Amino acid sequence: MPHISLNSAEPGIRGLLQYRPETGRPLSELAEVLLRGPSTLSRGERELIAAYVSGLNDCQYCSASHSACAAAQLPEGMALVEQVRADASGAPVSEKLKALLAIAAAVQRSGLEVTDEHIAGARAAGATDLEIHDTVLIAAAFCMMNRYVDGLATIAPADPARYAAGAQHLIKEGYLPPSAA
Amino acid sequence: MPHISLNSAEPGIRGLLQYRPETGRPLSELAEVLLRGPSTLSRGERELIAAYVSGLNDCQYCSASHSACAAAQLPEGMALVEQVRADASGAPVSEKLKALLAIAAAVQRSGLEVTDEHIAGARAAGATDLEIHDTVLIAAAFCMMNRYVDGLATIAPADPARYAAGAQHLIKEGYLPPSAA
Repeated sequence: MPHISLNSAEPGIRGLLQYRPETGRPLSELAEVLLRGPSTLSRGERELIAAYVSGLNDCQYCSASHSACAAAQLPEGMALVEQVRADASGAPVSEKLKALLAIAAAVQRSGLEVTDEHIAGARAAGATDLEIHDTVLIAAAFCMMNRYVDGLATIAPADPARYAAGAQHLIKEGYLPPSAA
Repeated sequence: MPHISLNSAEPGIRGLLQYRPETGRPLSELAEVLLRGPSTLSRGERELIAAYVSGLNDCQYCSASHSACAAAQLPEGMALVEQVRADASGAPVSEKLKALLAIAAAVQRSGLEVTDEHIAGARAAGATDLEIHDTVLIAAAFCMMNRYVDGLATIAPADPARYAAGAQHLIKEGYLPPSAA
């Protein structure tokens, strides 16, 4: 049961965005730009970074939700998402994505954990400054979202089908609330 | 030196907001609503929560910047900010603010660290659901901002006078970029 009385039975972040639309709007816009806006990282790759960080933070709702979004937008599907979440450095992804996932994992611990070596590794694998920037901000943003969702003890449905259906909706409609889209 | 080539010499978050205005806009809007929008928590109290969490995350730029903003908007000034950052549970603040600071400290560790006892303590001291919500989101948002600022190794000026001047500017102009204000 959530720590506060929400104004809907919506689970996870969705109930929070609806409870406080003044903060919900910029949070939704941030997710839309970071995960779906123009980028040389695919939407599947960006959702994978979000799912990976949410898993490191043990956030059940966000990790299930963004794993479903990543799986639905990556050719390799949920099998790859599960490999990355279990062992990112050994997963069959590009060297560039592997280096970006290592940066995301450092950010999850602390911004101060990102070293010159992390950045040099990503550059050597072909990452651009903007890709490095967006990876750091996606990882940092999910350190916020995860804390927001769990800090208020929102509900995380257990049924994976709920998250798969939610992913299809997000892929079609995006993260912006209907009134702002 | 920042990990990526920014398009200005602006320090901390300011250089990042300017580098990527697509994400800068929602981030600025979030800060404006949370720290300066209508609330039963004063602007000084909300800046104090931001400064406290930024200190727990060892983020030099954000903790100096929001300490200056809190000090400029609290009657007790920087002396109180320093007391809270050194020992929040022993600082001379209201029982309600003390309970909200304890929630913020839990969120800084993990959303999962916020317990029913934290919430009951805040309610017993008079905190409303919205105050609890906003405290959790301020703490979570600064876990993002701190990681963003330090994960890209932005510059943190050493001179306290820079932060005091920045605080006066923020108090007058707010967090929104000039074009969005």
